[in-house]
Amino acid sequence: MIHGGDVYTDGLMHGRDLIDYSSNINPLGVPKSFIDNISEGIEALTRYPDIKYRDVLKSLKEYVDCPEEYFVLGNGAAEIIDLVIACHKSLLIVVPSFVEYEIDAKKWNCSIDYSHLKKTSHLQKYSQSNEQNNEKNLLQPDYDELSYDYEDILNKLQKVEAIILGNPNNPNGNIIDKERFQRILEYCESNNKIIIIDEAFIEFTGDKQHSFVASVKNYKCLIIIRALTKFFAVPGIRFGYGISSNSALIKNIKEKQNPWNINCFAEVAARYVLRDREYIEKSKEWIREERPRFLRSLKNISFIEEVFFTYGNYVLCKLNGLAFKAGLNSEEFYKLCLAQGFVIRKADNFRGLDNQYVRLAIKDRNANEKLILMFQDLT
Amino acid sequence: MIHGGDVYTDGLMHGRDLIDYSSNINPLGVPKSFIDNISEGIEALTRYPDIKYRDVLKSLKEYVDCPEEYFVLGNGAAEIIDLVIACHKSLLIVVPSFVEYEIDAKKWNCSIDYSHLKKTSHLQKYSQSNEQNNEKNLLQPDYDELSYDYEDILNKLQKVEAIILGNPNNPNGNIIDKERFQRILEYCESNNKIIIIDEAFIEFTGDKQHSFVASVKNYKCLIIIRALTKFFAVPGIRFGYGISSNSALIKNIKEKQNPWNINCFAEVAARYVLRDREYIEKSKEWIREERPRFLRSLKNISFIEEVFFTYGNYVLCKLNGLAFKAGLNSEEFYKLCLAQGFVIRKADNFRGLDNQYVRLAIKDRNANEKLILMFQDLT
Repeated sequence: MIHGGDVYTDGLMHGRDLIDYSSNINPLGVPKSFIDNISEGIEALTRYPDIKYRDVLKSLKEYVDCPEEYFVLGNGAAEIIDLVIACHKSLLIVVPSFVEYEIDAKKWNCSIDYSHLKKTSHLQKYSQSNEQNNEKNLLQPDYDELSYDYEDILNKLQKVEAIILGNPNNPNGNIIDKERFQRILEYCESNNKIIIIDEAFIEFTGDKQHSFVASVKNYKCLIIIRALTKFFAVPGIRFGYGISSNSALIKNIKEKQNPWNINCFAEVAARYVLRDREYIEKSKEWIREERPRFLRSLKNISFIEEVFFTYGNYVLCKLNGLAFKAGLNSEEFYKLCLAQGFVIRKADNFRGLDNQYVRLAIKDRNANEKLILMFQDLT
Repeated sequence: MIHGGDVYTDGLMHGRDLIDYSSNINPLGVPKSFIDNISEGIEALTRYPDIKYRDVLKSLKEYVDCPEEYFVLGNGAAEIIDLVIACHKSLLIVVPSFVEYEIDAKKWNCSIDYSHLKKTSHLQKYSQSNEQNNEKNLLQPDYDELSYDYEDILNKLQKVEAIILGNPNNPNGNIIDKERFQRILEYCESNNKIIIIDEAFIEFTGDKQHSFVASVKNYKCLIIIRALTKFFAVPGIRFGYGISSNSALIKNIKEKQNPWNINCFAEVAARYVLRDREYIEKSKEWIREERPRFLRSLKNISFIEEVFFTYGNYVLCKLNGLAFKAGLNSEEFYKLCLAQGFVIRKADNFRGLDNQYVRLAIKDRNANEKLILMFQDLT
């Protein structure tokens, strides 16, 4: 398996109920606003979808605050990623990252260069009063971090047509530092390079300011890719979208698409969940509480050597195999967890990582505590 | 609009209820077996679909009686048509036919040649007793017909890598004469040419013998494309499939696809409707009764000059504009029908047809009678 979420091979196909820590889906589940209106999908079954998807575009326009003509819709983000990559002959991929970037680039005979994330320390702000009782903001390292190598990206961009990177990036969960990225943005805008930002997990950061959508209007070099999949917990529905003010690029992608690529249930989902303020707020509340709690718990697990700070709903961890008597790698750790009813994501097939790495979803309090307890019992 | 079924622009968007004679969907509606189990789709929403779609393949294997490895699944037949065409550098398209064949070929820079259907007479078998009271089978022309030009196809095949044709063909509804097609099949098998047969409407012919699926095993040159869309009345669900024993071709198509291209509701639909014997039998009964009845009624409409015999659930007609006082073409006829609450399909954008042609779906008795009455009132 090259992806997470394969609960079929190990679980459903064998009649076992597994807790899936390998795919990063909002644990609040499918928004009620969609379920309550699913009859609209059923009613629409016998009609071809609106080939122009006018109602969906209206919802997206409200949700993202961009004109309708900036959008291109996909059968999942996977379709948009694939087709935007197909528009280019060379691509810089920031790695480790979603393995489909590389698969798509190879499929389209697009030449690839890589910029590797580099290990740094995440710095936690804290205040300290000095003798004069003045508050001082200090920074203190609290977690490991895998950050973008902005210098390396800028250098390598000279030789490619486009770059793709996640914000937050998968599997580590770091976000782009807007200040440091500005030079890259300006360089690409002036030099006709395309920046593809995969924001599939952006809502989990909890802060709209982390997104690049507000820059789309002024930077034609930008295309943002998003989906309902993760934050609205509907991977089964297949709905993704691209956002760009670059009308030539949008046209190019659309020309590669097939008619009626969005099914009627995805249409209904898009119309309801994007307007579901209650679901959105509750989700943000959950991740705000669970993320730091889960990170802290993981830090105390003896066989986890490094916990990478994340803005997403997943955590990359580096195992310390020697903490186990006989030594341990991600494959064996995966099996250990599976025996306890948990599916985790081995991260060794992410370029730049090896069999010391695993990725864990952040789920609800109850599941997270079960996982942590299980980890504690393993040691 | 290049396709039928755009009830959004003229109807739904303006709050009008229209009878859609432009898209060819089984009027029996969504099979109850799917609706009754739609909760399985809802339950599957928060999981990624099985990336191997194992349950779906099992259903298809039973339904089509081919090994699982012969299948490739698509987000509608549109995806399979697109990707199989992408595998070739030159294509012979039998026209008039589904306009996407040409659009896809152009998109992939595939050079195109055309073989035009030719007008013939459909011959109705009937028995006559002679003086010695012996029964004799005679043939008598009853309808016009647009048939495949088998000689022309064979000649033109020499210069292309592949051919695509509908069986039954859209918009006219003729089916391939297996005896006359045999030479083409043999030629392609021996000369490494691919035959793409679009069987999106095959179930409406009412006879499995008309399909080429039984030949797939012995002819690697063949790939058949089908969908749930038309016969199972679920255009909104987006589910199509290709069938071929040519493992290199299947592999080639799969490598062009994105992961999770089938949504969870399409999965559930495929698992239930293909096994719904009652729905299948009822549908065949309906088309067996309504098709000849509808054809006869159309033949008696004064402004319809030619009614083309069809094995599908749609009828191509040639208007006699002069039957109207001021003359009439398909565009004006479309508007006339729309004013009466019916959407019909102008057929002028099918290559080889002009603004004298329209295509009508065959619907249930009640709707068909309304349409015919409306036509009678127009004259």
